[in-house]
Parts: sequence; structure tokens; C-alpha cells
Amino acid sequence: MADDRFHVYDTTLRDGAQQEGLNLTVADKLAIARHLDSLGVGFIEGGWPGANPKDTEFFRQARTELDLKHARLAAFGATRRAGVKAADDPLVAALRESGAPVVTLVAKSHDRHVELALRTTLEENLAMIRDTVSHLRAEGQRVFLDAEHFFDGYKSNPAYALEVVRTAAEAGADVIALCDTNGGMLPDELGEVVQEAVRSSARVGIHCHDDTGCAVANTLAAVQAGATHVQGCANGYGERSGNANLFTVVANLQLKRGFDLVPAGALADMTRIAHAITEVTNVTPNSHAPYVGTSAFAHKAGLHASAIKVDPNLYQHIDPAEVGNDMRMLVSDMAGRASVELKGRELGYELTPDHTKALVKEVKNLESQGYTFEAADASFELLLRDTVRGERRRHFEVESWRVIVERTKGGELVSEATVKVHAKGERIVATGEGNGPVNALDKAVRLALEQLYPELAKLELVDYKVRILEGTHGTDAVTRVLITSSDDRAEWSTVGVAENIIDASWQALEQAVTYGLLRAGRETL
Amino acid sequence: MADDRFHVYDTTLRDGAQQEGLNLTVADKLAIARHLDSLGVGFIEGGWPGANPKDTEFFRQARTELDLKHARLAAFGATRRAGVKAADDPLVAALRESGAPVVTLVAKSHDRHVELALRTTLEENLAMIRDTVSHLRAEGQRVFLDAEHFFDGYKSNPAYALEVVRTAAEAGADVIALCDTNGGMLPDELGEVVQEAVRSSARVGIHCHDDTGCAVANTLAAVQAGATHVQGCANGYGERSGNANLFTVVANLQLKRGFDLVPAGALADMTRIAHAITEVTNVTPNSHAPYVGTSAFAHKAGLHASAIKVDPNLYQHIDPAEVGNDMRMLVSDMAGRASVELKGRELGYELTPDHTKALVKEVKNLESQGYTFEAADASFELLLRDTVRGERRRHFEVESWRVIVERTKGGELVSEATVKVHAKGERIVATGEGNGPVNALDKAVRLALEQLYPELAKLELVDYKVRILEGTHGTDAVTRVLITSSDDRAEWSTVGVAENIIDASWQALEQAVTYGLLRAGRETL
Repeated sequence: MADDRFHVYDTTLRDGAQQEGLNLTVADKLAIARHLDSLGVGFIEGGWPGANPKDTEFFRQARTELDLKHARLAAFGATRRAGVKAADDPLVAALRESGAPVVTLVAKSHDRHVELALRTTLEENLAMIRDTVSHLRAEGQRVFLDAEHFFDGYKSNPAYALEVVRTAAEAGADVIALCDTNGGMLPDELGEVVQEAVRSSARVGIHCHDDTGCAVANTLAAVQAGATHVQGCANGYGERSGNANLFTVVANLQLKRGFDLVPAGALADMTRIAHAITEVTNVTPNSHAPYVGTSAFAHKAGLHASAIKVDPNLYQHIDPAEVGNDMRMLVSDMAGRASVELKGRELGYELTPDHTKALVKEVKNLESQGYTFEAADASFELLLRDTVRGERRRHFEVESWRVIVERTKGGELVSEATVKVHAKGERIVATGEGNGPVNALDKAVRLALEQLYPELAKLELVDYKVRILEGTHGTDAVTRVLITSSDDRAEWSTVGVAENIIDASWQALEQAVTYGLLRAGRETL
Repeated sequence: MADDRFHVYDTTLRDGAQQEGLNLTVADKLAIARHLDSLGVGFIEGGWPGANPKDTEFFRQARTELDLKHARLAAFGATRRAGVKAADDPLVAALRESGAPVVTLVAKSHDRHVELALRTTLEENLAMIRDTVSHLRAEGQRVFLDAEHFFDGYKSNPAYALEVVRTAAEAGADVIALCDTNGGMLPDELGEVVQEAVRSSARVGIHCHDDTGCAVANTLAAVQAGATHVQGCANGYGERSGNANLFTVVANLQLKRGFDLVPAGALADMTRIAHAITEVTNVTPNSHAPYVGTSAFAHKAGLHASAIKVDPNLYQHIDPAEVGNDMRMLVSDMAGRASVELKGRELGYELTPDHTKALVKEVKNLESQGYTFEAADASFELLLRDTVRGERRRHFEVESWRVIVERTKGGELVSEATVKVHAKGERIVATGEGNGPVNALDKAVRLALEQLYPELAKLELVDYKVRILEGTHGTDAVTRVLITSSDDRAEWSTVGVAENIIDASWQALEQAVTYGLLRAGRETL
């Protein structure tokens, strides 16, 4: 477990999930939690059990599905309602029953919010904090408190804001995280207020949003003022302008301020982890993200090759290898020997050095074209099998395919696809219709093959992601398609890349079906 | 012209253009300069004349094409080479001849860079600065100096770094901008170093990069330490993790620190300007950008409607209207009456209040579906004409179209399109082939119509941009296509939006051809 003296507290699964367009399933949340744990964060806030069924389910599954090495899970929730006992409040009960070792309670610390939003008295709000914290402590959970709107509250009524901090600390909260909920603070003023709170003898944490573009700097200013608990989100996810980017905060503190927050080996995996999480969220990764962006250490101009050779550190603020990034910029270069061997072993293959070498070369080549294998395990496994056998083998061979998209005289939009395949010595032609060209293609190929492989009836296309990879002025843009498929037991993902979106989709579809047949026990031809 | 006491200095066209994937034409640069001027920045760094032909051409065209209201142009370039006189250095001559009222010279201030990259002595570097600054001053230009790698240089050899500042100031440079070229600084340390430089009695500026996620905070720390000149880029463009986002810096200083940097009316136009620039660069706008992002004031959860009604400012750090943004989040809401009237007048139409009202409603409706008219003037004009006339009129009516994308038995990828149109009482069927479905569709429609409208032979599709607008998990993603077309005299852009990329492309193509016919003097039916 992570050291308790300084907390790295991730709230991607709760506050980060407030980001527009970000919609995480329980499986997504579990996958992200595993990535965060492998980075070595101390706490993972999983959601608000009791407030929404998905989060309740997350905590239920986490007990059996999550085997965390570093992190402890935290359940987020509010202090009890006004006028009831904490022991009798069903939402407090949900926190208790979540099984999470830590509960993070959110409480109002801004006098006007207490009156206008909670519609209760300042004194009752303090009682709610006192009662809920001590109740959960008595029941055996560790309690942190998020002091919501703390900085604006401090401006409105400093004595009351500090009273909230003291009350929570006295009731047994281990940490009082001061929240810049509206995100409007600048570092100098924020640092001064944090110092005031630290003087009130509570252990202080910090929770910042990026509305002034200063979330990371505000977090650092709070640490300098005495905060020993930093909250943030993977890749800076969060509503409005996002939360403090936890990766940037950790890298800054560890590499530039000498903090020992996560294992050095884990930090060297940060770039990969940051990208793996974007594949789960399907939020386009920010290529300019500090430390982990694909462009973060890319140089375009003004450089003197000879000087770089003599001393590369003259042109970069850290050695990119410390965060698993690369001066020459391509994330594909991360696909080193070790990770390919590791992945092969995970899949149950023992690769010879020659196989590994060939596979690394092929992965690098494909990734430079826009492929990604981080989120397309099934495509990687097919590639691996082909490499080990020295040839490409499939359950079926495609003779041709055709997609027609048509706007008819009546104004109707029709999408239709025909595929011609050979399998088991037969030639099959099938046509499918869909609400779009890819949907039609999917139907056609399954219609064709189901005659020979009835198990394909169980196969389902459950997710289709498309991303246009940046080209100059859009004209040379390449399309990457990721398809997630499932049978009745598991899910797998495949990838296709081409200028033509339909061609890219076909590649991913063909692999999805092939992998589905392998899973069903059908050996390739 | 902008006030000289505090400089807002934009370097989008020079340092911002170093961003990977950003490739600006001269016309793009002129368009961006106009947008920046309308925001009221004080200085626009246009590029490095003499170092590359595009930048030389920019300064040439700027003399006649740019009518700047607030900003002054700055030409960027290096101090003279070692061992020659500034007056004899052709690159210095290009700066002199650029016609720019300001020259910003970049000079080394890091001892190791002088020795390793410039390969000259520390003394000669000072002489190069002294000579170049005084030469350009004597020739009548104002001179600023970018002290490259200043902060790393200060760590390596503080006396020398400060000597560079003093030398430039004594030679007549108005401002010495301290550059955190590698972007590795954090605000506390940076502020202390800036104070040192300010004590050397030069006017100090600041130039930050975002490699630690602190570019904005570093800029603010420098201002607090006495800097009176801030450099940055529109939307935070720039190499690696980007430059300081000038919009965020200006909004922070003006709205939170009481600086009077740009006219209040211009600040209220900042969101629109930020997005208009993304349409020129075709860089996907960051929806989470502070102040100007579409999500910057969007709320998803945890809010109490009644409290918001009583006091919306409890839930936002500024009034979004101050930067032209909207609490309810849609940029479409920017399409207010005034801007539609203005745009109509620009195009030569006098709109009645009823027409304006109807048009605003239609624009908002379409923008909420993903359309954008900021960069699709031709689509806007067609919409306006339809609104004024109360009906949709075109030169041709489309009966149907069909696109076939096929992978043949031989492995060849074929894209073919057929369109059936009615025009001038005739029914025409034409088929085109292309290297992709959209290319095929473009060929087919022009082949069909050229028989009746020979002027279409001049029409050319010059740019095709496609963007997948974010949906939840990609599945409901909508595709937006922007097409730029030209005849022999001008360019115009049209937009299409649909789930199906081919349908979206068709919409934009059809409008492109219609607008081309209008331009050629063909009245619509």
C-alpha cells in the first residue's frame, strides 16, 4: 500500500466522470481503477454508492474483481441530511455498506451555499459534519472531508469556512480537502488561504479545477503552503475545464520537488497508462498534455542537432524516459521488446527472441501508420499468432466486399453491403442492410459465415469508435476504427486503419469475427 | 493602438505555428492576425522574415492587406551571426526590410547554449546582441529581445544571464522577454528569478511554455514579480505542450487582477474569436479550455436549481458573458441577433427584424446539431437567401445519388458515385470515379452539371476537413464536413453534418456547387 504521509488521491471515477461526453460503464471504471493502481496512486475514489446504481454496482464488483496493489478505494458521499441522525440516513448507510475502507464526505463550507442550497442553518451544517464523520469513524471507516466551495466560502465568511475545517478534524476526519469548486482561484491567493487552514491544525488536502488554467499550479501552491493530500483526475478529466491533471501534479512533485509519491518504475509507465485510459474513455488524448502527450517532447524547429547530441537535456526539461515518453515523439516507440514479451506471456505464448524482434518491428510499423494495440488486444493476438506461425491463417478468405450508400429518389438513405467469402471449401455470397455502411457490412459478413459457423450467432458488435487522426489541414487524415465485440462470455477489441473509413471498418470487422471464431474453439485453417 | 504600459504580445503566427500538425498558409496567417487584432492584443509576431519565404511573403502582404486597429506587427529574428557586422548580415536586413514597426530578436542567455549551439564565446554573444539591437534602433525600428533559455541559463550561470538582459537594455531594447524555452519552470522559482531580472533595471517580459502545466501560472507569477509584457499564443498553440494560452492569461489578468488590457467589448468576443481561429487552423477546439471552451461553463451535476436562480454566481467563477461564453454551454447561443445582422450586412443584405429573428432561430437550431457557420460563410449566405425568400431555391434539384465503395476480387479498392439531377428542364445522370467516396461524388456532380453550366469547369475542391463531433462512446458520433472550393478568383466554404460521413459530405458538396453558380452570376431558379 502507498505511504500515508502524502496522499495522491484520484477522483477520475467520480469527479472526472462529470466531464461532458464521458460516460463510464462499470467495466470501464474497473479498467481505469486497475490502470491507476498500476501507477501507484494512494486512493481511488470510485463514485457515490447509493446515489446512483452504477456506482453501487462498482463497489460491489470491486470487492471481487479488483485486486489493488497500492491504492485504497474511497466511496464519495454527502454528510447526512439536516434533521436526521447519520445512523438513520440511507445515503450514509450506502457509504457504510460500500465496503470501501475510506469514505470521502462532501460538506458545504460556504455560508451562502448552506443557506441557499442546503437550506439549513450554519450550526446544523456543522452538526451534520460532526455527526456523519464520527458515525462512520465509529463504524470502522476512515473518513476524509471535501470542503466544497471552500475558497469562495473563505472570501464570504472566513471564520465559518475555518470552523468547518476544525469541526471535521475534531470529529475524526483524517484529511480536510479544500475544494476550489468553481475553479476561479489563482495560485498566490490560494496559497495564502491554505496556510490559514493549515494553521487550524487539521491535515489539509487540495482539490482544484482548471477554470483559470491554474489547477496544477494551484495544487502545487497548496502543497507549498502545507497541504499533504492532492486530488486530481487522470488526464485532467472533469466538468467545465476539468480537474487538476493528477499525472502532471505527480510528475511535477516527484521530478521537480523531490517527493517520493509513486514507484519510479510506475512513473516510467505513466505515458502508457495515460493513453490506455483514453482508450477506455474514448476521449481523444491531448497530444499536448504535459509529460505524457505524444507531442510533449517532440521538437519541430530551432534545434541544433550537434548541440542535442552533446547534451540533449539542454533542450528538454526532464528526461522523457522518466515518464515513459520519448524525445522523438512517437508513442509507438514505447512498444519495446519487454512490453511485447510481457503481453505475449499474458496471452499464453512463449516467444523466442526472433519472434519478439519480428513482432516489435511489426507493431512499431503499424503504430506509425496509426494503429493502436493498447486497446485492441484481439488484433494484437492475431498479429502475434501470424508472427509465430510465419504466415497469416484465417477461418475464411475474403474474395471481395462492396458497400452501397444511396439517397433514393424518395429521399430515403439506404446502406447495403455484400460480401463474398470462401470457407470450408465453399463460396458464399451474402448481403446485409443497415442504418449505415459499417452496420450493413457487419450484417453481411455474419450472414455469410453463420451458415458454416453457427456460433457466430452469439457474436455481437457492442461498440464502434472512430477517430480521425490528425493530418495537415485534414486532407491526409487517416481514420482509425476500434470495434468491440462480445460473445456470451467476454469482450474483445480490434482495430483498423485506412484513409477510407469503410476500409478501416472492414479490417476491424474481419478481425473481430476471426477472433470470435478462435474463442469458440475453431482453429484457423 | 493599444496602451504601451503593459504589452499583450501574441506569437501564434511564429511560436504557435511550431505546433505539430499546424501548418498555416499566408492567407491563414492574415486571417488569424485580423482575429487577434479584433481582440485588441498589442503586438502580433508575424514570423521570421528572411528565414522562410512564407513569412517574408506574410510581411509583404500585411502592408496592404492588414489594416490593424490595435496591434502592431513584430518581425522575429536572431541577432547577427558571430563575426560579421549587423549591418552586413542578410538575415538582419530581412528584419529591417520587413516593414514591421517592431523587431523581436532572439538571443542566447544560457552560457552552455552559447558555446554548444552558437559555438562562439560568451563575449561575442553579448557583442552580437549589442550590435544588432543598436543597429535596428538606429534604423528606426523598435526592438524587443527574447532571452532564450533564460531560466535554465540563470541556473547555470546567473551572472551571465543577467548580463544578457543588461546588455540588451543598454543597447536600446525596450523589453527583454525572459523565455522559459524548455518549459520546465514552476511558478514559485520562476517568480524569484524574474524579480532578479527586474532589479537589473530593464523592462521585463515573460514567455512561457506549458511543459509542467504551469504556463499560465508562470506568466502570472512573472507579472506579480514585475513583468509588464506577456507573450502567449491563441488557444495555447505551440510546440510540445504548447505556449501560454494568451486568452487565459488576458482573462485572468483583466477579470481577476484588475488590469485593463483589451477593450471590454473585445473581451466579450473572446469565445467567438478563439473558435474562429480553430476553424482557420483546423485544430479541434479544446472544449475544456478555460473561459472559452464550450464546456467551460457547462454544469452536469450536483447543482441546486433554486440556488442557481437566486445567485448564479455561486456556481461560476465569473459571469461567462464577460468572455462571450454562456453558462448553458452552447457556443451556438453566441449566434445572437447582432452578429447575424452584422454578417448579413457584410454580405450585402439588409435584413428585416423578422428575417433576422427567423435566421437566428435557424442558425441556433443547426449549430445545436453540430453545424458551424463561423468558417462556412457560403453555407450561411445560402441559408440567409433561403430565409429572405421564404423558400429554398437552387440551380438544380437532386433526384438521387449513390456511392459504391468496393474491394474487388483482385484486392483493388474502387470508389464510384452516380448522381441523378434535374436542371433547366433536363434530367441528367452522371457517374464519377475517385480515390475515395467523396472524391467520386464530387466528380459525378460536376460531370452532370458541367453540360449545362460550363463555368463549373473552373470550380475546384481545394480543401476537405472532417471532424467527428464527440458522442458518448463514439456510437452516436456525428460527422461534420467542411469543404473549401474555389473558382479562379475566390474561395468559399460550406458545411454538412450527418451521422453518415457520405451524407454529410454530400450536403457540403451540393452547397459548394450552388454557391459557385451564384458567384458565376447564375441566379437560382
